[in-house]
Amino acid sequence: MHFHIMTLFPEMVMNGLNTSIIGRAADKGLLSIEAINIRDYAFNKHQSVDDYPYGGGAGMLMQAEPVYQAYKAIEERINYEHKGDGGGCEEYMPKKPRVVYLSPQGDVFHQKMAEELAQEEDLILLCGHYEGIDERVLEEIVTDYVSIGDYVLTGGELPAMVMVDAIARLVPGVLHNDVSAEFESFQDNLLEYPQYSRPEIWHEKQVPSVLLSGHHANIEKWRREQSVIRTAKRRPDLLEGAELTEDEKQLAKEFIENEVKNA
Amino acid sequence: MHFHIMTLFPEMVMNGLNTSIIGRAADKGLLSIEAINIRDYAFNKHQSVDDYPYGGGAGMLMQAEPVYQAYKAIEERINYEHKGDGGGCEEYMPKKPRVVYLSPQGDVFHQKMAEELAQEEDLILLCGHYEGIDERVLEEIVTDYVSIGDYVLTGGELPAMVMVDAIARLVPGVLHNDVSAEFESFQDNLLEYPQYSRPEIWHEKQVPSVLLSGHHANIEKWRREQSVIRTAKRRPDLLEGAELTEDEKQLAKEFIENEVKNA
Repeated sequence: MHFHIMTLFPEMVMNGLNTSIIGRAADKGLLSIEAINIRDYAFNKHQSVDDYPYGGGAGMLMQAEPVYQAYKAIEERINYEHKGDGGGCEEYMPKKPRVVYLSPQGDVFHQKMAEELAQEEDLILLCGHYEGIDERVLEEIVTDYVSIGDYVLTGGELPAMVMVDAIARLVPGVLHNDVSAEFESFQDNLLEYPQYSRPEIWHEKQVPSVLLSGHHANIEKWRREQSVIRTAKRRPDLLEGAELTEDEKQLAKEFIENEVKNA
Repeated sequence: MHFHIMTLFPEMVMNGLNTSIIGRAADKGLLSIEAINIRDYAFNKHQSVDDYPYGGGAGMLMQAEPVYQAYKAIEERINYEHKGDGGGCEEYMPKKPRVVYLSPQGDVFHQKMAEELAQEEDLILLCGHYEGIDERVLEEIVTDYVSIGDYVLTGGELPAMVMVDAIARLVPGVLHNDVSAEFESFQDNLLEYPQYSRPEIWHEKQVPSVLLSGHHANIEKWRREQSVIRTAKRRPDLLEGAELTEDEKQLAKEFIENEVKNA
């Protein structure tokens, strides 16, 4: 999978994604990440890419043309490479890659969306800065408006890094251990159970004895119960989408009722 | 305001937060950001900080003690500095700083939480990695469990950077222009209106004429309407919390009804 990040701050993006997992996956050829500097496509000698908004207001906007030219360069390159793959087939149809604009105005990102986007061969992420980007170029190139959450950030760079991290983990072969992805949070809409490592006693706190028992079935049962209780406690909204046994439903219900009683 | 980020990847965090806005604010003394390497508090000669989870399972856990020692070092420093501020007052009570653990098991971060956290003098952000952190040290030091959204990431580093960015912007004096923060997304629970910059015509698309009119009241009216329509279109869930006039409620309702009819 190939990530193409359009940004005014390519170094920030590349430095922030330089983690061991992504680095190893890139070395193995499972994915590539490139940051394209929109400023390289400015059409004036000062390389300026922003201007005042029509109608007034605070701050500056990113102009349409440099964003468009940067996009066209990536699109051409993607299609050129795919054409190469096809062995010179005459019927080759140019592909419109998916372009995600990171924006608080978008659909809120979640794990299912990450799974879906991990199926793409190429994904372009467009990072806005200043007060945003001229609406007309967004209309022309953007296929998906995505927000990573309901909060305001300086630019689209951190959100793009978050999306790349979440999506890259789901590309087959990237995680060292497939079990890791499978048993993590949001699997089954349940939060993860508490975990303990050595020493057995730390600050007078003992590791729950079931975890030392070596009894695999009991450990699984305990962990599942802890997941249900924790989800009931911290994110009861997730329980609706969880597949629970009758016993587990009862456990969650009792927990929530006790909380209300003690409140 | 002082941010203290506990992490195994201090360089990644500092590089990713090296933006112009935050850099200027740090130069002005409005905020400081430091990344504390938890590995520096490892208690063995190999500086290892992770070990297998009790009860089995994939991956490694961060152990309690290095995290605890790193925390204690920050806490002591904060209290020492505050004591200095107080001019040697004998009645000084050590302060327990707020410690946010970035985790998919936490409350979901949103703009109101950012506003609240921006009131703190010191904020410690704890980044987990691998399969998480020994539960016992979390119980002992963490005051807030926060998730930036319902997706799984490699570690707490990107979420910590996202939180610092969102919170730092709200520290008084940080933004070049206070108007910028005030009129941004989520103000009044409405999304931002579309924006346009030069040229007036781009790819045969004309800037909406009202924005060229110079008529301030009409421009405000148009922008507000666009915000209402866009919110109705993309995030109808936000409208419940928005303060709308009767006309605006009607506008949102008509838009939503039209969408349903055309669907």
